[in-house]
Order: sequence, then C-alpha cells, then structure tokens
Amino acid sequence: MATCAGVSRRLAGGLHALLSQASFGSGPGFAAASRSLAKSRGDLGLALATATTTTTTATASAGPRGTSHAPPSSGREEGSPGTSRAYGSARTEKDSASTTYDVGCSSNIRWHESPVTRDARERQLDQRGCVLWMTGLSGSGKSTVAFTLEHLLQEKGKVCYVLDGDNVRHGLCKDLGFTRESREENIRRMGEVAKLMANAGIVTVVSIISPFAEDRDRVRSSLGADFHEVYVKVPLSVCEERDPKGLYRKVREGKIKGFTGVDSPYEAPRSPEVTLEAARGEPADMAKELYEYLEEKGLLKF
Amino acid sequence: MATCAGVSRRLAGGLHALLSQASFGSGPGFAAASRSLAKSRGDLGLALATATTTTTTATASAGPRGTSHAPPSSGREEGSPGTSRAYGSARTEKDSASTTYDVGCSSNIRWHESPVTRDARERQLDQRGCVLWMTGLSGSGKSTVAFTLEHLLQEKGKVCYVLDGDNVRHGLCKDLGFTRESREENIRRMGEVAKLMANAGIVTVVSIISPFAEDRDRVRSSLGADFHEVYVKVPLSVCEERDPKGLYRKVREGKIKGFTGVDSPYEAPRSPEVTLEAARGEPADMAKELYEYLEEKGLLKF
Repeated sequence: MATCAGVSRRLAGGLHALLSQASFGSGPGFAAASRSLAKSRGDLGLALATATTTTTTATASAGPRGTSHAPPSSGREEGSPGTSRAYGSARTEKDSASTTYDVGCSSNIRWHESPVTRDARERQLDQRGCVLWMTGLSGSGKSTVAFTLEHLLQEKGKVCYVLDGDNVRHGLCKDLGFTRESREENIRRMGEVAKLMANAGIVTVVSIISPFAEDRDRVRSSLGADFHEVYVKVPLSVCEERDPKGLYRKVREGKIKGFTGVDSPYEAPRSPEVTLEAARGEPADMAKELYEYLEEKGLLKF
Repeated sequence: MATCAGVSRRLAGGLHALLSQASFGSGPGFAAASRSLAKSRGDLGLALATATTTTTTATASAGPRGTSHAPPSSGREEGSPGTSRAYGSARTEKDSASTTYDVGCSSNIRWHESPVTRDARERQLDQRGCVLWMTGLSGSGKSTVAFTLEHLLQEKGKVCYVLDGDNVRHGLCKDLGFTRESREENIRRMGEVAKLMANAGIVTVVSIISPFAEDRDRVRSSLGADFHEVYVKVPLSVCEERDPKGLYRKVREGKIKGFTGVDSPYEAPRSPEVTLEAARGEPADMAKELYEYLEEKGLLKF
C-alpha cells in the first residue's frame, strides 16, 4: 500500500477497461492459450499491452459484467462458445507472451476468464446476480431490512448474502477509519466485493451508510446495471430517537465527532432505484417491497 | 487509509476476537435488540466494550465460522434459535446503547448477526462453504486447475467461485503492487473476501502465488477449518519452460525484478492439505483430485 498511496483515489475515479479473450481448447498442454485484448482509458493511466497472436480459436468474451466495458446486455453473453469445451486443458503457447499489462499498482497481470460463465452460474441458481445498495443514516434500519430481505429470499429458495458495513469492518476493512479518505476506500472495497458476489450470481445486499454521493456513484459506474440504489429514508429525528447503538447520544455528549447527519453531511441519493420510507411500515414490509422490486426486474429467475 | 498506516500489518498478525449475541424478536419496533459480548485479545490492541443489558431473549451465536473464536464445530451452530422467528422485527431498546466497540481503525461498530445462519445457507445449497487456497509459482497452473475445478463442480450442481489473484488485482486490489507490504495486504484481502464467500456457503477457490508462509498462515488462522491449502508443486524449470505470460523471459531480460522463484523467495507449504504435482497429469486430473478431496471431507453435501 505504501508504494501506491493516492492511486486508489485516482483509479477510483475511473474504470479499468479490459476486454479479454480466452479459449479453453482440448490440447494436452497445461494453461489456457489465450489472446488478450486490452483497451486503455485515458483517465486511468493504465499501461496496457495488447496481444497480437494466438494459436487456437479464440472468441470474444468480456470481463465481469457490469463494468463500463461490459454492459449487462453484452455481459450476459460473457464467456466464449469454447466454454462448453472447458474442463479440458489447453496448451500454453509461447507467443501469448505479451498478454500481460498493468492495472493501478499491479504490474504484469492479465484477466483469467473462467470457463464457467456468469450466465451459467445464474442459470444454476435460477436468479440473476445483482447488488442492492442500501444507503441511509445510522439507525435508519438498513441492516434490519437487509437481513429480513435475506431471510425472505432464502425462504423462496433464492441465494442472497448481506454485506453489512459494520460486519465488513471486522475483517476486510478493519484497517480503515472514518476519515473522508477511509470512507471512500471503504465504499470502494464494498463495491468491489459486491461486484464479485454479483458475478457469482448472488443477490448481494450491501448495507452501509455511504453518505457521499460521489462514492456511491463510483460504485454505480463500476457495477453498471447490476447496481440498484435503495435509499432508506428516515428522518434524523427518528434515527436519533431510536438510537439503537447509542451513537447519537455519544455524539450529543461530544464523544464522537464527524458523525453522519449531525456534524458530517449525508448526501441523499438523487435518483435511487427504490426509496423506503419509515412511514411505510415494518422492516418486513420494506423487505417485501424490495423483494417485489427484484421480482419485477426479473432478477429472481434466470 | 492514511490515518491507519501500519495498522493493517499490526492487525494482520492477530485475530479479532468477537463474540456477538443477537436476537431477532417479534416486537413492533425496528432494529434488532441485541446483546453483544465482545472479547479482546491483547495482541490486537482492540478497544472493546461489553454490553451489559438486554431486554429480549438473547441466545449465543458466534461470528463468522472459521475464526479463531468460532471454530467449525461451534460455528456450525452459529445463529440463534431466534432465527426461526426472524423476518419479523424487534424493538430497539435504548439500554443496548453501549453495544459498540472498536476494531482496528473502525470505531463504534458492532457485529450484526443475520437471522439466516450459515448452516441454513449451506443446507439450501447442499454443500459446505470452504476455501481451497491454491499456492504455487507463476505458471504452475493454479488458475487453470481452479477454473477447471469450478467447471466440474458446476456440472455436479455445486456452487463454486474462483478468486483469481490476477483478476482481483483488476478491482479490489488494484491499489496494491508487489512490495512485501503490498503482497501481505493483498493476501489479507483475498483471505477476507474468501471468508465472506465461504460464509455465504460457497466452495471458494483462491488462486494466488502467495509466496510467503507467514501470510498464508495468517489466513489459515483467520479461516480455521474452512482453510484448505493446496500446493501446486511444479518445478521452477517447468514453469519457466511453459512461461504462459512471458514473465520469466522478462525476468531473465532484467525487465522484472523481485519475481517469485527467481529473485524473490517462494516458501513452499510445510503441511498443505493437498499437494498437486505436475507429474500427476492434466489439469482435469488435478481438478478431479480436488473434487474428490472435497467429497471426502464431506464438503459437497450438507
């Protein structure tokens, strides 16, 4: 990390743009012979090399769906016809030697396309991977609704996972605090993990205050049509009255500084896909509303 | 991140130790009333507060399985009897006000227990979440075997996802380079994401060089019995002969420094759960060997 300070911020503003092409042949060799076509975006400062040769049939396939270079429509077609021939092996060819490139601080890497497409994973689960991004004040009930939705989906045989902001700070993000920079990196990581889970075909529910529109918008750009913003709209006064963690009390006592909604801004979403209001009822009602949203969007079947 | 430089490294050496207890009641309120019991470990320097009051029936449940505080045996029981009552709501009680604590750089957080237990997720998928950690030299065929295994598992109706080192460097870890510190953080993040995926019930295959035993051992400690180390044992000479990415050539030409196996050490696992040797055949054979390992361990059924 030390060598790349600031790069995350710079990179977060854009999107890596990579198109990789790979085939899994049936030869006796070992690694997949592949042709990788990498495209750079000027705003990223990525140093990308393009491959020029290939020795086996290679068909186009995009990176993880939801990135700017792989819109959902094309993303759904991700993977190559060659995938049906996968679970075999392909010969490593020396002339694929220039198929690596740099992304951010990571040099000499390349995208490895799985022979199992996202479509195949989604077909298996009879659902579509997606991300419900629940944003709102502390105490607005994001996590309660998220977990209630998870339970409802599970009862219906759907595969869901909740990435809860607090929970992920116990592990992946425990090195991050609550400064502006740390919050930005926290949101970026949550977005990236959610992207991986959506790519795995899971209905992924992210429950996180995420107060800054800029940070949420970056995740939206990164995830594309997989991103569904859910604004849990509960007035500060109600959240403060609830105060489930006793945090508002601590804020009023001066024990916590920079608290969202009090002395740090909360930027409400301008065009969220769903707005949940406290007045609409119990968490179970809100979870049901989200369930119906997912159903309407065709995400609960393949 | 700026405020916490070095903390990641310090924290990585230990394990957060948290036991949270939560219940999902059936009251008309909103957030789950919970009692959280947090235990600190001296080597972490965590500032943890313990809750002293609760107003609804609370039953013990551990954090994500696989952590040192939640061994698999107890982890399998994670979640509370109250979970069957979930998809309801519980009243927020003011006297649960002191249930937050600090973890690393994250202050005033607490674990939110899902009403859907890991067991329930695994029962749904008829498999056990786990992590196959594939380590080996560049060019040893880790990713090829990993993706081939994914395909095989999918054909058998099992849910698998591959976290490929290069692929994750396109997103979550694109801010990390290849310095010792960056590699350590890279491995830590991969371990944390794998932990989340295993907790979601997925057979998670991590394909990453991970040259340092210390880094792998930290992940092992964090994941506990969920961690299965797979050593892809292929001699350097064979990897160099294959050179699928042309990296060894660049190393010999002096274009890449600090390359694992050449001018940076690769510390082979001392006691890997599985060792795959190139001499044993094709990637398909190796993938089959891993499949059989998973089967033997009872991980492919609930």
